[in-house]
Amino acid sequence: MIVLRTPKGWTCPPQIDGKRTEDYWRSHQVPMGDMGKPAHVKILEQWMKSYKPQELFDKSGRFKPELAELAPKDDRRMSANPHANGGLLLKDLRLPDFRRYAVAVKQPGAVEAEATRIMGAFLRDTMKINMEHRNFRLFSPDENNSNRWQDVLEVTNRAWMAERYPYDDHLASDGRVMEMLSEHQCQGWLEGYLLTGRHGFFSCYEAFIHIIDSMFNQHAKWLKVCNHIPWRRPIASLNYLLSSHVWRQDHNGFSHQDPGFIDHVVNKKAEVIRVYLPPDANTLLSVTDHCLRSRNHVNVIVAGKQSAPQWLDMDAAVKHCTAGIGIWEWASNDRNSEPDVVMACCGDVPTLETLAAVSLLRRYLPDVKVRVVNVVDLMKLQPSAEHPNGLSDKDFDALFTTDKPVIFAFHGYPWLIHRLTYRRTNHKNLHVRGYKEEGTTTTPFDMAVMNDLDRFHLVADVIDRIGLRGSHHQAGPPRQAYRTKHYIAEHGEDMPEIRQWKWSGAVRRKTD
Amino acid sequence: MIVLRTPKGWTCPPQIDGKRTEDYWRSHQVPMGDMGKPAHVKILEQWMKSYKPQELFDKSGRFKPELAELAPKDDRRMSANPHANGGLLLKDLRLPDFRRYAVAVKQPGAVEAEATRIMGAFLRDTMKINMEHRNFRLFSPDENNSNRWQDVLEVTNRAWMAERYPYDDHLASDGRVMEMLSEHQCQGWLEGYLLTGRHGFFSCYEAFIHIIDSMFNQHAKWLKVCNHIPWRRPIASLNYLLSSHVWRQDHNGFSHQDPGFIDHVVNKKAEVIRVYLPPDANTLLSVTDHCLRSRNHVNVIVAGKQSAPQWLDMDAAVKHCTAGIGIWEWASNDRNSEPDVVMACCGDVPTLETLAAVSLLRRYLPDVKVRVVNVVDLMKLQPSAEHPNGLSDKDFDALFTTDKPVIFAFHGYPWLIHRLTYRRTNHKNLHVRGYKEEGTTTTPFDMAVMNDLDRFHLVADVIDRIGLRGSHHQAGPPRQAYRTKHYIAEHGEDMPEIRQWKWSGAVRRKTD
Repeated sequence: MIVLRTPKGWTCPPQIDGKRTEDYWRSHQVPMGDMGKPAHVKILEQWMKSYKPQELFDKSGRFKPELAELAPKDDRRMSANPHANGGLLLKDLRLPDFRRYAVAVKQPGAVEAEATRIMGAFLRDTMKINMEHRNFRLFSPDENNSNRWQDVLEVTNRAWMAERYPYDDHLASDGRVMEMLSEHQCQGWLEGYLLTGRHGFFSCYEAFIHIIDSMFNQHAKWLKVCNHIPWRRPIASLNYLLSSHVWRQDHNGFSHQDPGFIDHVVNKKAEVIRVYLPPDANTLLSVTDHCLRSRNHVNVIVAGKQSAPQWLDMDAAVKHCTAGIGIWEWASNDRNSEPDVVMACCGDVPTLETLAAVSLLRRYLPDVKVRVVNVVDLMKLQPSAEHPNGLSDKDFDALFTTDKPVIFAFHGYPWLIHRLTYRRTNHKNLHVRGYKEEGTTTTPFDMAVMNDLDRFHLVADVIDRIGLRGSHHQAGPPRQAYRTKHYIAEHGEDMPEIRQWKWSGAVRRKTD
Repeated sequence: MIVLRTPKGWTCPPQIDGKRTEDYWRSHQVPMGDMGKPAHVKILEQWMKSYKPQELFDKSGRFKPELAELAPKDDRRMSANPHANGGLLLKDLRLPDFRRYAVAVKQPGAVEAEATRIMGAFLRDTMKINMEHRNFRLFSPDENNSNRWQDVLEVTNRAWMAERYPYDDHLASDGRVMEMLSEHQCQGWLEGYLLTGRHGFFSCYEAFIHIIDSMFNQHAKWLKVCNHIPWRRPIASLNYLLSSHVWRQDHNGFSHQDPGFIDHVVNKKAEVIRVYLPPDANTLLSVTDHCLRSRNHVNVIVAGKQSAPQWLDMDAAVKHCTAGIGIWEWASNDRNSEPDVVMACCGDVPTLETLAAVSLLRRYLPDVKVRVVNVVDLMKLQPSAEHPNGLSDKDFDALFTTDKPVIFAFHGYPWLIHRLTYRRTNHKNLHVRGYKEEGTTTTPFDMAVMNDLDRFHLVADVIDRIGLRGSHHQAGPPRQAYRTKHYIAEHGEDMPEIRQWKWSGAVRRKTD
């Protein structure tokens, strides 16, 4: 590597109008204006002549061929060098079959698992079988293990170039896990790594990925422009796992709660942007495999690291992720008819609360016909004219109906769903719950209660929207949420019936 | 200042289960779990006893009064110290009468001015008359002059603590303009300055303010929480001027175009957030005065620095800014009746293009009744239930009608307007133009053309939406935009009729 430090504006006039210019801020961009002044024209002439054009050009003004010869040729040209067009060097990652890492889910909700830990096992073996190609790395601001990717340390170490001590934990100069408590550094490393034809994944606490908002902007803009330059070869996508997310900041509280990176991302060009919110481990595996194979995208995956109920077996997960959105028949009781209400969910915690709300409805209001729609690929919600993954209006209407109330439980800020769906037929009946900047250091369920996303609020929303207006119906569910608040204040944890709740909707299903 | 550096987890057990803990990462948060293990209980006991509780508590377990005496009292307590509750120390800024800096506007569009330069003169004199209180500073990532605040250097200097040279330009150790090419540093300085009871203003290139998205988040969250803590006294608002904005990056291009900080800001609590897009210099003066007087807000002002037509005289500007939104009667021809179309605009460039479109309509389709609505206070668009500044539905309907097409030209991403207005009666007829990530290093007008925000596209939108479907009407305006593209490609600047365009709607008004 050669480091060349030069004065700012090197070789421009030392002074202009008596003011220092070369090696000074005045040489920035346009060192001299007012070209109507003869003195300025004179300065410009002297300046241009200082480069001795008579040595560079022949008498007819042509650049001398012996000098043109000095420029590098072919691949040695800066922009033609394959290292500056990394797609030329890109090798596909070898990927183990993600299905091998599946959580066995005999019935929806029967088992629990930590989704990102399962993903970590898949990434560990991906790391292992690509070791000889040295083209895969993980990046994290000192959160690799906290986000549950620790298994990768079985096959590699954290990269560490400085002095080492005997008590060090998985540090090595050839480690392929890049950890430094700097989101900026991780983002910069990963961008450079991708642009030179390699593959990577960035895991980050959801709230703190905003630290690199501006760097993400430039990468997304770069990809958008490259898509229109034919000689630029596709590179591996920039993959983010956002975990330790807004709904589970039990110890950290308000400062660690911000699901707005998605809002930021979807402002960039649709052709570049993908956003996934898999509701459990098997869907996360399927999405991860997809992202590692994709090219020229920014893929944002939001998934929890906490132990949580698992909904789909691997076959169902693959099918669901391939569609990106779909009706969960096993949780719905509107078979062969129109539902009274659509309960949509996107994100792991909203999916859990939605299914718990469905259970309550099944028990207390069994005649209400509920359709459950789960969203994995957020961009399915946008019209197909706006995003390549977007549903057609016909397909959207088939899922969300054209006139029934839709109660939508969303992982992020609720208005993002409105921003994506405002042109849809049934938008006027869409009622979204999500994070609205309420909450602090508290229990997982209390977080949902404080943001009106919990099962009881969702049941109340259904009752309100389908027009069951008896006082019993209206007062019951919110009162229930209030009761849990008292319990939490006294015991410091959620009520047993919340902590130990299990999906049992299928068993109780009246239409079965 | 005392700097105390301690080992991480200082005084916790040196090792747990044979693994280094004190002075190591394992002491983070919860150094030991598994409290069912007797060995762990023993370690905990030894650890707790290492603090010698018998020396601290008496036999009944009460903290010894002579030790309690050692704690500081009253204002010496950390959180009660006025320097940690800056509102206690806050003095109102002395403000010159902003009306004195007004641009004389005899007729709308008759004169041009650089809005932020006018603002800079007001800030210069604000600096001057508060010099003795030493409680006002300006902050900028090396863009103070580029954003046109250079006049302030007549009364103070840039703060500079290091060595100085004879050719230095306005550097001094007591300078009150804080410049460093680091948005992070500027934001951090300003936050600390406000929290200790002083006043400030941050000017930044619009695209690069995203660099401090995450820092802004924490300040907004801090303010939200403080609003519910009665002993916390109000502090001066965090004021941003975003200039050198997306529509005028003539030399810098795509990397410098991002109007999304507003989208980021409006995700935070409504009680904290204010966003202003004054369309000219006099409205900018009025808004600036308002922001410098406000407390506990984050105020975002977006305003251009380029020479641009001035629309309102000072009386009209004050009236318009006080309302935050309103019909521009002088640009409308729907007096005493319902309009055929509402042309709404928010931001300086969209206002210019809207008025130019109105001129074209006035000339070629004089029978079309147009109402022009200009928005200064963006949050007026949200329902009053969502934001304290929001219009009631009745007032919104009175401006935007309940059933007429609305062509809305917006400074930022167009979907933000939908996100703010999706509950409004007439939302289904709302058609928004704004920045959609198109553009590069080009002329100002070509930027508008590339994003469909230019006068010709706006005219085409009107024709399309009010149902004038003759082929002549449909083809004309976009063809015009296409013609300017050819001119720009050949001449490198906008056509004379674009560059020299003047508002003449009032003269040609048919109803006058």
